[in-house]
Amino acid sequence: MRVLITGVDGYLGWPLAHALARRGHLVAGIDALLRREWVAEMGSQSATPILDIDSRLTVFREVHGEDLRFVPGNVCNYDLVEEAIRDFMPDCVVHLGQMPSAPYSMIDAHHAVFTHQNNIVGTLNLLFALRDLAPNAHLVKLGTMGEYGTPNIDIPEGFFDIEYRGRRDRLPFPRQPNSMYHLTKVHDSANIHFACRVWGLTCTDVMQGVVFGTRIDALNGDDRLLTRFDVDQAFGTVINRFCAQAVIGMALSPYGRGHQRRGFLSLRDSIQCLALIIENPPDGAGEYRILNQFHETFDVYDLALVVQGTARDMGIDVEIKTVENPRIEAERHYYNPDHQKLFDLGYRPTRTVREEIRETLEDLGRFAERIRLCRGAILPSIRWRERKPRPSPVGGF
Amino acid sequence: MRVLITGVDGYLGWPLAHALARRGHLVAGIDALLRREWVAEMGSQSATPILDIDSRLTVFREVHGEDLRFVPGNVCNYDLVEEAIRDFMPDCVVHLGQMPSAPYSMIDAHHAVFTHQNNIVGTLNLLFALRDLAPNAHLVKLGTMGEYGTPNIDIPEGFFDIEYRGRRDRLPFPRQPNSMYHLTKVHDSANIHFACRVWGLTCTDVMQGVVFGTRIDALNGDDRLLTRFDVDQAFGTVINRFCAQAVIGMALSPYGRGHQRRGFLSLRDSIQCLALIIENPPDGAGEYRILNQFHETFDVYDLALVVQGTARDMGIDVEIKTVENPRIEAERHYYNPDHQKLFDLGYRPTRTVREEIRETLEDLGRFAERIRLCRGAILPSIRWRERKPRPSPVGGF
Repeated sequence: MRVLITGVDGYLGWPLAHALARRGHLVAGIDALLRREWVAEMGSQSATPILDIDSRLTVFREVHGEDLRFVPGNVCNYDLVEEAIRDFMPDCVVHLGQMPSAPYSMIDAHHAVFTHQNNIVGTLNLLFALRDLAPNAHLVKLGTMGEYGTPNIDIPEGFFDIEYRGRRDRLPFPRQPNSMYHLTKVHDSANIHFACRVWGLTCTDVMQGVVFGTRIDALNGDDRLLTRFDVDQAFGTVINRFCAQAVIGMALSPYGRGHQRRGFLSLRDSIQCLALIIENPPDGAGEYRILNQFHETFDVYDLALVVQGTARDMGIDVEIKTVENPRIEAERHYYNPDHQKLFDLGYRPTRTVREEIRETLEDLGRFAERIRLCRGAILPSIRWRERKPRPSPVGGF
Repeated sequence: MRVLITGVDGYLGWPLAHALARRGHLVAGIDALLRREWVAEMGSQSATPILDIDSRLTVFREVHGEDLRFVPGNVCNYDLVEEAIRDFMPDCVVHLGQMPSAPYSMIDAHHAVFTHQNNIVGTLNLLFALRDLAPNAHLVKLGTMGEYGTPNIDIPEGFFDIEYRGRRDRLPFPRQPNSMYHLTKVHDSANIHFACRVWGLTCTDVMQGVVFGTRIDALNGDDRLLTRFDVDQAFGTVINRFCAQAVIGMALSPYGRGHQRRGFLSLRDSIQCLALIIENPPDGAGEYRILNQFHETFDVYDLALVVQGTARDMGIDVEIKTVENPRIEAERHYYNPDHQKLFDLGYRPTRTVREEIRETLEDLGRFAERIRLCRGAILPSIRWRERKPRPSPVGGF
């Protein structure tokens, strides 16, 4: 299969390219390398040492005996997207080329506007280019479980059948996202739904939980193939931040009381799921398939306890110290999302969360010096309500 | 009250400014005058002769004895928005400064992207500026009944209480809009909901039906105060187009079988409703109030019959000739939207649709020569599915 990955230089894009190449697919990629700049803007860098893009491409060829056909550039440039689709004629486009951080989108009006423009325009360009040049290709788009927010009812996979005042319909499940970033993903979902309904495009919109971890098998223990691993307040996801904190002996820092409940899955399983989705497109043209992609739900404080316990087994003692929640979000809430469709496609979780956390801690141990350099970027200073970041308070509560 | 109107040079903005001034409010306005350019791009112009903005402002002062404080510029410029809010410190901001045409947004990828950027960024800028400078001001935002699409169940006013798998919640009603333009309004609604929920802003989001007509009382029969009246395929709404066609003896042109059902209200009633909303903000801070604003629902073919009949009474004979529907939309569907909240605020329709159509036809009769100049811009050439506009087919079906 010919698979075009936008955002191929990213946390998911890079390991996905390797996994697909190992499975015999032909891979092309687009990336403007902006993630590297955003993380630098946050005063941080990848905890894992990653190669520059040219070296990555050289190693890719060496490992797989096949080029990753790389287009440097931005998916917000329509002509570039059109040319990439026309040249490569993909069977599948995996769209990961977006700004993925909630805190980054909440810094101020300019970052909120940037996030909207960057994320929405890239997706629109892909939808129009597919409509006009490759209407039978399958678009796989990364959404987020955060699109749904935390309603007081079960969360289905995208659509639900309801009765209202005695009549019935099958409708998109209402979204109540909690950051400017999450809003852009909701807007994308509405735009993609339109493209399927009106233009007959075939798309899978992946409502992904929080991804964590360092490894996938296709990376094969070869350090030149390492994917990035961010630990800063904006681009580091919560388990990754806890693991980084543990490795440098810094207290783990759940936000608020830490009872926010979310769905999680490992990097390894995220890539497994994406490969399953790519190799099993929806049956019918014009289908808009939504999948909820996560392994288990946890409350954030419980995860801190797991990281603390696993670290202790490895001889590292760390405290847990809650910090004032910089976000506005429910800290205790009902949370019961469905996640059956990926299991039906063949998804089998490869590790328990505890096992995966152990591997992550082991891997990060080698990079403790690099993490120490990012130490000042880990705790939250971007707040949901105010424009000017304030210093975070001393201690927890 | 101090009211800031974005898009004050537009079809609704200009008469609203006069209506508010007559009611004793202090009015400021922002406009980049883009609507004039977009209509020119469609090969058309306002059927009514309208003054340039400087002359409009001079006449405004003469009529009301008070300046309209005008800021030339674009709401997509954050600094301009911030300065306008800081200088004027409005009690209410009425946000009309958007690109309002579904067909224009469907021309190609560039117009879809432009519509998204223009509409979403302007709203974001206002939300951030209000959060930081005037958090107690009331934002009145024009949405559209088209946000809802045509679900097979009743359409409430924005939110609905549902039971799902034995649990209950009050959730945003799902949106299924049918053009890139309508999608931007859905995105705005999600962003505004967030700003109310998370920042405590107070907003009214008006799901407005299709507006038509030429007059409001505050314009007082003074031709220098006329608002624009568009008849082209992109910026002319359906009754306005039918009236323009009747005046120049051109067949009325419903799209497809013409059984699309929509909510309609006159320009006069739109302004009446907006004044009611401005003078009756929601009770509580942080409230996100959604109102469905229309008088009656009609099927488009029936409206063509009303225009035809009214024209006949005035001695004008016109045919009705359906054209191939350039849009992808349900042509027969259930449609039963609620619209009670505005009646509760005191809204009383001032004319029947038939009476309002008669006045519009009378007014337009004087401008038949101008409409003839726009004749080539009336029938649809922008199609929902293809990039390149094709000539519209001969005859109906």
